[in-house]
Amino acid sequence: MTAALPPRRYFDWAATAPPEAGAAAAPFGNPSSLHAEGRAARESLEAARSRCAAALGLKPETVYFSSGGTESNAMPILSFLLRPGAGACLYSATEHPSVRENCRILEKMGKTVGVIPVEADGRVSAAGLGRALEKNPESRFAAIMAVNNETGALNDLGALREGLRGKDGPPLHVHCDMVQAAGKVPADISLWDLDSASLSAHKLGGPRGVGLLYLRKPLETLYRGGGQEGGIRAGTENVAGALALAACLETHAERLETSLRAARERLDQLMRGLEATGRYSPIPACRTSAEDGRFSPYILQAAFDGVPGEVMARALDQAGFAVSTGSACASGKAGRPVLEAMGLGPKQRLEGIRISQGWSTTPDDIEALVRAAAEALAYL
Amino acid sequence: MTAALPPRRYFDWAATAPPEAGAAAAPFGNPSSLHAEGRAARESLEAARSRCAAALGLKPETVYFSSGGTESNAMPILSFLLRPGAGACLYSATEHPSVRENCRILEKMGKTVGVIPVEADGRVSAAGLGRALEKNPESRFAAIMAVNNETGALNDLGALREGLRGKDGPPLHVHCDMVQAAGKVPADISLWDLDSASLSAHKLGGPRGVGLLYLRKPLETLYRGGGQEGGIRAGTENVAGALALAACLETHAERLETSLRAARERLDQLMRGLEATGRYSPIPACRTSAEDGRFSPYILQAAFDGVPGEVMARALDQAGFAVSTGSACASGKAGRPVLEAMGLGPKQRLEGIRISQGWSTTPDDIEALVRAAAEALAYL
Repeated sequence: MTAALPPRRYFDWAATAPPEAGAAAAPFGNPSSLHAEGRAARESLEAARSRCAAALGLKPETVYFSSGGTESNAMPILSFLLRPGAGACLYSATEHPSVRENCRILEKMGKTVGVIPVEADGRVSAAGLGRALEKNPESRFAAIMAVNNETGALNDLGALREGLRGKDGPPLHVHCDMVQAAGKVPADISLWDLDSASLSAHKLGGPRGVGLLYLRKPLETLYRGGGQEGGIRAGTENVAGALALAACLETHAERLETSLRAARERLDQLMRGLEATGRYSPIPACRTSAEDGRFSPYILQAAFDGVPGEVMARALDQAGFAVSTGSACASGKAGRPVLEAMGLGPKQRLEGIRISQGWSTTPDDIEALVRAAAEALAYL
Repeated sequence: MTAALPPRRYFDWAATAPPEAGAAAAPFGNPSSLHAEGRAARESLEAARSRCAAALGLKPETVYFSSGGTESNAMPILSFLLRPGAGACLYSATEHPSVRENCRILEKMGKTVGVIPVEADGRVSAAGLGRALEKNPESRFAAIMAVNNETGALNDLGALREGLRGKDGPPLHVHCDMVQAAGKVPADISLWDLDSASLSAHKLGGPRGVGLLYLRKPLETLYRGGGQEGGIRAGTENVAGALALAACLETHAERLETSLRAARERLDQLMRGLEATGRYSPIPACRTSAEDGRFSPYILQAAFDGVPGEVMARALDQAGFAVSTGSACASGKAGRPVLEAMGLGPKQRLEGIRISQGWSTTPDDIEALVRAAAEALAYL
């Protein structure tokens, strides 16, 4: 007789979401072909673009499809390589590796790159931004993410935008990684007056391999070939992926406020439950309420006194719960640069785990997770 | 009463293939996550890699998944930007835009780039290659495609390889765009002693947005972020896409010879049928037999005397046949650089159309196409 396996409860929505939209039915033609099959594919692709644009409050001609969030982040950053003497490029200290590592490529190739510090709460402040701009007066580009993928820290792009206008000289290009924000928290590309922004379908329940790049104005990019996507991103267009992304964005735009309220309630349940274990503390320590508007309720970074995050993650995994430590991208790699940038010491960096929820997480899931954490703590 | 629409017959397989493999069922987890969902996804991804490698006669650790053929071509080319003083980069005059335009990026950024001429049959010759190497003695990279996407011209990589070894100094990195070759004509990465090669899933009946890059040795690339694919290509891995690509490669590897023979027979039927119209000529003119081993039987470039290719393509489209002029990527754009590189004059460049077939094309489809072409010619 085999012991029944525990049911799986998924708390790693920040890594990827369980698929919601089935594969979209799409005409198979190549949208660049002029025959009927090609025209049908083109029509579907442009319909997908218009639907994505409408869901995001954008003009369709500013929406470009890409292979995902990483590529959408890389595109505006690497386009710097094609602009000689384009000034310095800034990125916030807690950016996702797809922003950070691409900025490092710029640096490696001789461009000036600077880091915008974050406060103890993991957010960029006007003061920190001001210091970075003072240090790099030639700045022409700044990447500031909307929601941090490890802590849920929300940057107030609307408020920061004022400091990013560039006192002298041309205005800065402001890029926003919206991968963890889109469809989850209020995020408004137009209101925030962004120059570019990135989204990924699979974080929204869509398929892998498709993302979106918003570009206020076309840029010369490194993604050359057959001239697809207005010359911005070459490669035969993924029509089915674009349609699936459109469906995800529409669904999530519709239920954003309802979902957000429910996520806050579940986060409150989670935080209160974990507090009752007596060994929990939030990261950062100042995040004591689920109502705290500085954080996305979908992501919680938590520490358990005396238990390395990896040990806790493994114990929970064995009990049927998927949680992670840092970002999936950095699993198994050394260091916690996001927590370090927030000024956290080695103990907290070691103990941090990420619990991320989504639209199908239930209060029952939360209750089970809290119970499992308490049980794990009893022997850890 | 509406007139019945003509049935559609698809002759643009070089642009994209009708989907064959359904969407592969794949675990949804992020392969970089350490929990059970992540491990299951990782297992599937590595299984897909091993299956692709086996179908191509390669070691799994030399196979990297990408977002498609364009990206797989761009990766080794753009990696040149990270190697200061890496010498000249050569590409054949008939390369796909995803190779050509990326080489032009190198040029724009100050690298030396040279073109390998082709003969009148559209193929690279040892003599032409020798001249290009003489002109660019610092060459360290050469891109030579296996099958041209507009003419079907087959480059004999095995024979050319000898001239590419680099007499003095380090050997050249030889990259081969195998997008139109894989699964269709005998193409052997190991036998050809390639350093890198690219494949696309959607040309093989697989989904959009997934491709494969073979790399004999890891390269430093521009595709940075979370370090996926051994640091070669960042971005959450498309597990379903990788599995679908593996299934396609297996299917096509199995039936390659049978399919090839059938494709030759259908091409013979097509060529004889078109000859009977009295106004057909093959491009290049020397391609008079379907058995001609210099060409892939899956792609025929044809001209009809006095009829611009665009007009013929439109007439056939209205009659229910999807054919194209140049590559889909270049549809609606000026010029026919591939035909120009072969030394063809304006008349042939204007008249050329591409007829490309695939594994589900039938002799009945060919017969109908020949009849439709003859009917169109009667009033054109």
